[in-house]
Amino acid sequence: MTDKKLSGAGLRGQSAGETALSTVGKSGSGLTYRGYDLKDLADNVCFEEVAYLILKGELPNQQQLNEYVIKLKSLRGLPTALKEVLERIPADTHPMDVMRTGCSMLGNLEPEHSFNEQNEAADRLLAAFPSIICYWYRFSHDGVRIETETDDEHIGAHFLHLLHSKKPSDLHAKVMDSSLILYAEHEFNASTFTGRVCASTLSDMHSCVTGAIGSLRGPLHGGANEAAMALIENLKDEQDARDTLAGMLARKDKIMGFGHAIYRESDPRNAIIKSWSEQLAADFGDDRLYRVSVACESIMWEQKKLFCNADFFHASAYHYMGIPTELFTPIFVCSRLTGWAAHVMEQRSNNRIIRPSADYVGEEPRRVKPIAER
Amino acid sequence: MTDKKLSGAGLRGQSAGETALSTVGKSGSGLTYRGYDLKDLADNVCFEEVAYLILKGELPNQQQLNEYVIKLKSLRGLPTALKEVLERIPADTHPMDVMRTGCSMLGNLEPEHSFNEQNEAADRLLAAFPSIICYWYRFSHDGVRIETETDDEHIGAHFLHLLHSKKPSDLHAKVMDSSLILYAEHEFNASTFTGRVCASTLSDMHSCVTGAIGSLRGPLHGGANEAAMALIENLKDEQDARDTLAGMLARKDKIMGFGHAIYRESDPRNAIIKSWSEQLAADFGDDRLYRVSVACESIMWEQKKLFCNADFFHASAYHYMGIPTELFTPIFVCSRLTGWAAHVMEQRSNNRIIRPSADYVGEEPRRVKPIAER
Repeated sequence: MTDKKLSGAGLRGQSAGETALSTVGKSGSGLTYRGYDLKDLADNVCFEEVAYLILKGELPNQQQLNEYVIKLKSLRGLPTALKEVLERIPADTHPMDVMRTGCSMLGNLEPEHSFNEQNEAADRLLAAFPSIICYWYRFSHDGVRIETETDDEHIGAHFLHLLHSKKPSDLHAKVMDSSLILYAEHEFNASTFTGRVCASTLSDMHSCVTGAIGSLRGPLHGGANEAAMALIENLKDEQDARDTLAGMLARKDKIMGFGHAIYRESDPRNAIIKSWSEQLAADFGDDRLYRVSVACESIMWEQKKLFCNADFFHASAYHYMGIPTELFTPIFVCSRLTGWAAHVMEQRSNNRIIRPSADYVGEEPRRVKPIAER
Repeated sequence: MTDKKLSGAGLRGQSAGETALSTVGKSGSGLTYRGYDLKDLADNVCFEEVAYLILKGELPNQQQLNEYVIKLKSLRGLPTALKEVLERIPADTHPMDVMRTGCSMLGNLEPEHSFNEQNEAADRLLAAFPSIICYWYRFSHDGVRIETETDDEHIGAHFLHLLHSKKPSDLHAKVMDSSLILYAEHEFNASTFTGRVCASTLSDMHSCVTGAIGSLRGPLHGGANEAAMALIENLKDEQDARDTLAGMLARKDKIMGFGHAIYRESDPRNAIIKSWSEQLAADFGDDRLYRVSVACESIMWEQKKLFCNADFFHASAYHYMGIPTELFTPIFVCSRLTGWAAHVMEQRSNNRIIRPSADYVGEEPRRVKPIAER
């Protein structure tokens, strides 16, 4: 394959459809959800307002928000059969595989019978995902069957509550809420596009979301915050960060959490999560992870002109909140479900099956030989 | 959206990558697997040889085939935890949802730890899919826990054996084998493309196949043979077929099983399965379904110049073999797994993440209003 062909691979820069859900690298700080700048949203609304905006088209008024929060709270319980399935998934399973299986199983138990039920299916997944991952995690790791219904208003606080069996601090609740806003939607990335290809066959919501989870699982897509954690957790101080990254750059090792396929100068999500990481470090009483992260950011910019993307400071932020590294990407799922589901609905509203062509590079026509002559 | 844009939607005619696996509508009878014409394969080899060809690149010699058949036979048993999961899926679940969940759960229990294991993962799925669907079907519908290991040499016969708890006739075994060959691979169709998008994130085999199943589930993709069955089972005779189709055409009803996105004059798979359907009808002793199917074929060609695709005569053929209609698309999965898995391996071998762009058609930049003013 020639370089020329490779540079055109991956459909980079080719339009695969229309969307009204977001812009990436086009206006404002670089990321907008339905016209609103990400920073404006992160500063002024909660994640449930963002979910409502993405799924239903407009920000809710107070009454709509109250009703939506109450509705989502009522959908946190899991069917017995789903819990029994989660209990049969081994403790060493990749948590993204658990999310994939949990989503698929929920689709068996509570199928979307028609597209009239698409909003209900999306809201149910939004409410149930923290329950699915935390129920499995606590059962497989701690041997306890947790109650998945809490009275926390917000999904972020609810997640932390399930994970730690206690209400989170106000700071932790606020950071989780903000984090969920940052990851909610990002145009035609690979997992979202997976969901849209699936939706284009007019398949059901659970199939689309299950497929999207499988794509987000890939190390080139989700998982960068986990890889960032693996890097920073071993760095003793700023000097160690400088030495370690210098070695990695010299060896041309892949360093996760930097640069972006579309953003060219900065990722608008970074400043927000970096600021939270700094506050969490002060609250935690040991700011090593934050300091070495800042050092990494400086080195990567100085040496490679690469900026931190959304994932890099998420590593330290999540760690300060006591979240096990392997649950970082499942949190991404809990948030991105909003974008995925909205893209499924958008694809359905103006659909043509997504069926590209391929360039054939295989054998010329040939005849089957009798097996004795092969 | 304008008509012009719609005609360019769905990536129709746009190359999304390279493949050496098949050509559709390009040479021979219209479909080639790794250079071999479909008809040549269907006339001269068994499905396991086709699977070997697609997954490993060349047709096997006798010793390779013998070893492959023995290997696949040894991989038909299901882990206890998977059987326990299948037992918790309700009887009224869409069988494609069962396949999706079964594949995902198998990925939890027997994960592909590295790409070095990709061939093992594919062979395991190929061997286990008939067990997964039949174990669930027989448990949920008949209340029995079947033994999923049989001594049938071929996968098609094995499937019928599990379904009916007895060895199939030679004719039925041969037809199932042929049917699996017809459905094995078909270039960048929507389910295969779903698998490749997932693979492009470097996700695992089970995620890619789970996603592909979800796309094949959609009524615009798999399921056409089920829809064909729904049509023909109510047709009393040729005259009824003529009257019914005339009415449907007048009402512009969608008639499934005819025409194709790429083939323009005929589907090379149709002549093969049509011939088998005729033989099955004679063997069955009641050829009504075959006769009304032939009548439908004539009418659709006369009235609309539409030909039968692979799905239409599959409906009567499967029915004559006592296969419940809802299991038609899962059989498709048991076959197409070969193509999906080979495309995953091909994508991995020369990968760039598949991340297209979108045309933005949403709101202009706007500011968040305080909630009291919304």
